Amino acid sequence: MSTYERGQALSEKVNPGMEDALRARYDALVPGLSRTVVDVAYGQFYARGGVDEKTRLLATIAALTALGAQTRPQLKVNIGSARAVGATREEICEIIFQMTLYGGFPAMINAMNAAIEVFEAEEKETPDE
Amino acid sequence: MSTYERGQALSEKVNPGMEDALRARYDALVPGLSRTVVDVAYGQFYARGGVDEKTRLLATIAALTALGAQTRPQLKVNIGSARAVGATREEICEIIFQMTLYGGFPAMINAMNAAIEVFEAEEKETPDE
Amino acid sequence: MSTYERGQALSEKVNPGMEDALRARYDALVPGLSRTVVDVAYGQFYARGGVDEKTRLLATIAALTALGAQTRPQLKVNIGSARAVGATREEICEIIFQMTLYGGFPAMINAMNAAIEVFEAEEKETPDE
Amino acid sequence: MSTYERGQALSEKVNPGMEDALRARYDALVPGLSRTVVDVAYGQFYARGGVDEKTRLLATIAALTALGAQTRPQLKVNIGSARAVGATREEICEIIFQMTLYGGFPAMINAMNAAIEVFEAEEKETPDE
Amino acid sequence: MSTYERGQALSEKVNPGMEDALRARYDALVPGLSRTVVDVAYGQFYARGGVDEKTRLLATIAALTALGAQTRPQLKVNIGSARAVGATREEICEIIFQMTLYGGFPAMINAMNAAIEVFEAEEKETPDE
Amino acid sequence: MSTYERGQALSEKVNPGMEDALRARYDALVPGLSRTVVDVAYGQFYARGGVDEKTRLLATIAALTALGAQTRPQLKVNIGSARAVGATREEICEIIFQMTLYGGFPAMINAMNAAIEVFEAEEKETPDE
Repeated sequence: MSTYERGQALSEKVNPGMEDALRARYDALVPGLSRTVVDVAYGQFYARGGVDEKTRLLATIAALTALGAQTRPQLKVNIGSARAVGATREEICEIIFQMTLYGGFPAMINAMNAAIEVFEAEEKETPDE
Repeated sequence: MSTYERGQALSEKVNPGMEDALRARYDALVPGLSRTVVDVAYGQFYARGGVDEKTRLLATIAALTALGAQTRPQLKVNIGSARAVGATREEICEIIFQMTLYGGFPAMINAMNAAIEVFEAEEKETPDE
Repeated sequence: MSTYERGQALSEKVNPGMEDALRARYDALVPGLSRTVVDVAYGQFYARGGVDEKTRLLATIAALTALGAQTRPQLKVNIGSARAVGATREEICEIIFQMTLYGGFPAMINAMNAAIEVFEAEEKETPDE
Repeated sequence: MSTYERGQALSEKVNPGMEDALRARYDALVPGLSRTVVDVAYGQFYARGGVDEKTRLLATIAALTALGAQTRPQLKVNIGSARAVGATREEICEIIFQMTLYGGFPAMINAMNAAIEVFEAEEKETPDE
Repeated sequence: MSTYERGQALSEKVNPGMEDALRARYDALVPGLSRTVVDVAYGQFYARGGVDEKTRLLATIAALTALGAQTRPQLKVNIGSARAVGATREEICEIIFQMTLYGGFPAMINAMNAAIEVFEAEEKETPDE
Repeated sequence: MSTYERGQALSEKVNPGMEDALRARYDALVPGLSRTVVDVAYGQFYARGGVDEKTRLLATIAALTALGAQTRPQLKVNIGSARAVGATREEICEIIFQMTLYGGFPAMINAMNAAIEVFEAEEKETPDE
C-alpha cells in the first residue's frame, strides 16, 4: 500500500469527504495539493505507529495551542479528532492548560475557547451525552 | 498542602536541587523568582492530575518542538523528564516528527538533534542500557 | 496575605468580576483555572513592586504588540488597564509604534487598530473626555 | 529625491490614497506615522533595486505566509500587488504552497484562503478576465 | 516516476549525500524519516514547477529570515542552493533586507550574518571568484 | 534636521561607532543598509518623544524577551542602553520576569541569562559599582 493509499484510508475514516473538499477548493490553483495533504499529513505522519493515536492528537493540540490563534481552525479539527479516538474533555483541557507555561496565558485562554466551541457543537449533535 | 509545597515535592523528585540553583542565580535580581517557578510551574501545572504524567510531558515536548530553537534547554529538560516517567525513545521521536506538520521541517530537525543529545548523555551515564 | 489573596485584591480593583467570569466559564473543565489565573498572573506577577505599574503595563503592551494578532483580546485589556493607571494615549501609541522595529509593520498596525477600538469605547462611556 | 518622495511616488502608484488614509486614521495618535510608513516601507525598502519587483513581492508573500494569520490583511495587499506587477496566480500559489515546509500546513491553508479571496475580488472587478 | 524517486533525483543533484546522512543519523529513531524528507520536501515541494527555481529559493530565504534564528542551519542551506541556481549575492541580500519590514531589524541582521558566512565559505572554496 | 541626522546624533551618543561598523560589514552587500538603520531605527523611532527614553527601552526589552532567543544580541544591546539611561537592574529584571505570562517560562529564563551577562560585563568595567 502506498503512503497515499494509507493516507486516504485514514483521512476517509477520521474526516470523511476532506480530500474531495480540498480538491474542489485548491487543486485548480495548486495541482495535486489535495493529494499531497492526504499522502503527507495522513499517510506519512498521522498513520505512523510508535505512539498511540490519542497521545499523538493530544500532543498536536498542545503544539497548536502554543503556536497561538493562527492555527485555530486546525486546533478545532484536532480537538474533534482527539474526542473521536477517546480523549476526554478533561484530558484535552489539561493539556491546553499546561501550555500556559510555554505559550503564555493568552494562548491558553484562546485555545480553551476553541475547545469549548467544539464541546458545544458536540452537545448540539448529541444532546443526551 | 500549599501549591508551593506540592511544587517542591515534585521538583525535588524530578529535578533535585533545581530550586536551590534558581535561588542562587536569580533571586537577588528578582526576589522570589525561584519560589514562583516551583509554586507555579510544578505546583500549579505539572502536579495536576486529569491526564497521565507521560502524556503531559510528551505534549510539552510537542509544543517546545513547534516553538523552535529558542526553547532548546527546556526541551532537553522535558525530554529527560519524559524518559524518567517511562516514555520510550520511539514515543518521544514520533511526537517530535509529527511536529513537522505544524512547525515545519527545520523545527523538527532541531528538536531531533536535541533528543539525540539527551539520549547520548543517557548512554554515558548508563552504558549498559 | 497569600499570593492568591493579593491577586484577588488587585484583580477586583482593575477587572472587577473577572475571577467569577473565569470560574463560570472554565473551572468545570479545568478545576481551579480561575484561582491559578488570579494567584499567578495577578498575585505573583502584576502585584509585584520594583517597577511602577504604568511601566509594567506599557511593557506588556509592547510584548503583546510584537507577538502579533493572536493576543488581541489581552492587548485590549492591557491597554485599558494602562489607561486606568494614568498612561496617556500618546504614551501607549508611541510604545506600539516603537514595536515596528521588532515585530514588523503588520504587527504595529494591528495593535494600533486595537488601541483605537479601546479609545473609541472610552469616548462612548465618557463623551466629555 | 528624498526617500520620502521616492516612497510617495511608489505608494501612489501601487496603493493610491494609502498615505492619506493612514494620515487620517493614525497621525493624530502618532504624529508622522503615515510619513514614516511611506518613507520607510516604500521609499527605503520596496523602491530599492537589486532584485526585480515581482520576486520581491513573491518573497514577501512567502514570509507573511510563514508568519501566520496575524499578517492576513498585509498578505492580501501583497498578493494584490504581486498580481499588479505580473505575477500569475500559479506563481503566487506555488510560493504559498512551498511554505508548508517551513510554516506548516495550517499556515499554508490559511494563506491559500487569503489568496482565493483576492482572486475572487479580481473576478468581480473584471468579470471577463 | 514516484514522488520519492523525483525527490531523490533532485536531492542528489543539489545536496549530494543528504539522504544517506539523514538515514544514518535519524532512521533508527524514526523509521523512514530520511525517505519522508526526500519524498516530501524534495519530491512533493521543491521539484514542483509553476515558478522558477531561483524565485522558489529566494522566497524560502525570505520566510526563514522572517521566522528568525531558529532556522539558521536551513537558512544557510537555502542560501547555498540559491547561489547554486544562479542567484546573485545582491539578490539574496536584497530579499533578506526587505524582511526588516515583516520580521523586524534583529531578524534581518541575523540573516545577513548567515549569508555572510555562506559567502565567506564560497570564497574559501573558489578564491578567484 | 533630517531624520538621518537626528538618528546619527542619537546613535553616536548611545552606540558610538555603530554606523561605521554596520557600513563596513553590510553596505557592500546592501548599499545604504547602515544609513537606513540609523535613519529609521534611531531617527524615526528611538529619537521620538511622547514617552520617556527609559520606558521606551524597558518596553523594547519586554518585547525582545517575549519574542525569544532569536533576538538575544539585540536584547543585550537594549539592556545596556536601558542601564545607560538610568534603569536599575531591578526594573529591567522585573520587566523580564513579567514576560513569563506572555512568552512563557523558557523565554523569561533565557532573557534573565542575557541580562546577567550584561550585568557581569558592567562589573568588569566598573568593579566598584
